[in-house]
Amino acid sequence: MSHSFDFRTPQAVSDDEARELLAFAHTLADASRSVIKPYFRTELQPDDKEGRAYYDPVTDADREAETAIRRLINDAYPAHGILGEEHGYEHGKSALTWVLDPIDGTRAFVAGKPTWGTLIALHDGAKPILGIMDQPYTEERYSGVQQLDHAQLDDRNGNHVLATRSHTRLSTARMSSTHPSMFDKPGIKERYAQLQDSVQLDMFGGDCYAYCMVALGTMDLVVEAGLAPYDIQALIPIIEAAGGCVSTWDGGPADLGGKIVASANKELHAEVLAILSDPED
Amino acid sequence: MSHSFDFRTPQAVSDDEARELLAFAHTLADASRSVIKPYFRTELQPDDKEGRAYYDPVTDADREAETAIRRLINDAYPAHGILGEEHGYEHGKSALTWVLDPIDGTRAFVAGKPTWGTLIALHDGAKPILGIMDQPYTEERYSGVQQLDHAQLDDRNGNHVLATRSHTRLSTARMSSTHPSMFDKPGIKERYAQLQDSVQLDMFGGDCYAYCMVALGTMDLVVEAGLAPYDIQALIPIIEAAGGCVSTWDGGPADLGGKIVASANKELHAEVLAILSDPED
Repeated sequence: MSHSFDFRTPQAVSDDEARELLAFAHTLADASRSVIKPYFRTELQPDDKEGRAYYDPVTDADREAETAIRRLINDAYPAHGILGEEHGYEHGKSALTWVLDPIDGTRAFVAGKPTWGTLIALHDGAKPILGIMDQPYTEERYSGVQQLDHAQLDDRNGNHVLATRSHTRLSTARMSSTHPSMFDKPGIKERYAQLQDSVQLDMFGGDCYAYCMVALGTMDLVVEAGLAPYDIQALIPIIEAAGGCVSTWDGGPADLGGKIVASANKELHAEVLAILSDPED
Repeated sequence: MSHSFDFRTPQAVSDDEARELLAFAHTLADASRSVIKPYFRTELQPDDKEGRAYYDPVTDADREAETAIRRLINDAYPAHGILGEEHGYEHGKSALTWVLDPIDGTRAFVAGKPTWGTLIALHDGAKPILGIMDQPYTEERYSGVQQLDHAQLDDRNGNHVLATRSHTRLSTARMSSTHPSMFDKPGIKERYAQLQDSVQLDMFGGDCYAYCMVALGTMDLVVEAGLAPYDIQALIPIIEAAGGCVSTWDGGPADLGGKIVASANKELHAEVLAILSDPED
């Protein structure tokens, strides 16, 4: 099962098509929510995936939701490609590729915490152009499409425009990372510690939820390592459409995952890259 | 402003009185929820408290909610004592004392994450006999009264009986702690690292929410240090009524805070204390 992801000549999408694809992405999120929600906080039997450095449970909910999403995509857009965490890569005739992680934050999921989410991205061959993060238990849905100037949270209290904190700099930044063990390597460890010493507030345990808090303007910085393409692609359009930045630690495109930094604004991003980037990486 | 808390000859409470006090505690949680919820995810201006080792914002929401709760207690039970994080200790004629933290997890609160909560405990002079954790944004309310065999989550999906995982042992335990810096001291650091190596899964960032996940049976272990009485008292009856254990690292009563361990069952608790307790502490 391949999880590699390749860049291609981008497929142009009109504004009308982008609106149609956003509506369709909401249909996908509705479908995954209805599959996953009944599993949350029931007795699960997580399996250990082979080749992972730490405990990473994969549940029936994960697999069933991805199957449901793939069926809908194949029916509506048979030419589109699909890359999903659970069922691998289907190369499309079109450069438009859906990039899926039905449950990002599976450890939070099995532990009963609401910081996991369903990630749905659409990549045009050059960049992710549409992203959704859906939290079925809290009923929050974050979506972003930069082309449409759309960055929105839909929750039980209504619809809210997402906007990052444009004035934050490193000394006033609120930072989040999923787990400190991500940075437990020589070289990386020191750079991360310097960042911790430089920010106002650092937290752990955010999963995909933390990136949405940057888009919402309540957090400023997410720094992580070891991500897959499907862990980050959906979050890029949400943060960028809200005014933030997402890149690798050396400033490259974040589409393929790896070591990732997401921040509230360009000036903050530059301050962070000055600490995290390493020409020898 | 004193935050010290003293044990006293316990005030006996009948089952009928316990039911009345539980209903009243829900009234308090309703009041604090209506005060705090409008502040969540709005632009806050947190102040740094003096004498704290790290950034710990206190907001208007915190102070206003405690004022509202205190007013209701003074009206309904003027003889009762009150200890609150924001407005200190009012010694009561009765040994019954309400112990309050309107926003436990203020860092999560300002960051927009839903893992903070309102903590309301009633202490009878010897032990906390009633506890509530209320999460206004997700609309979750956890409550426990061991005397009434009551351990319950009320959320938007209905009411659920809380029960810890009775079969979990250290090697299969899911552990949570709010932040690794809690354990960044010689002696403590090594013991915590040994625990991390012994469990199946460790997470950070839980705040009071993580304790409720132990009661819910999706997590097994919360280990923390540096807690105040109002950070832990409400959580003790919730976890104990659900079948779990709460104590200091050396096995003493957890009422006064400090270094705390909460676990899903007695056997697991004993395994954890064997690692964490230190006769020289």
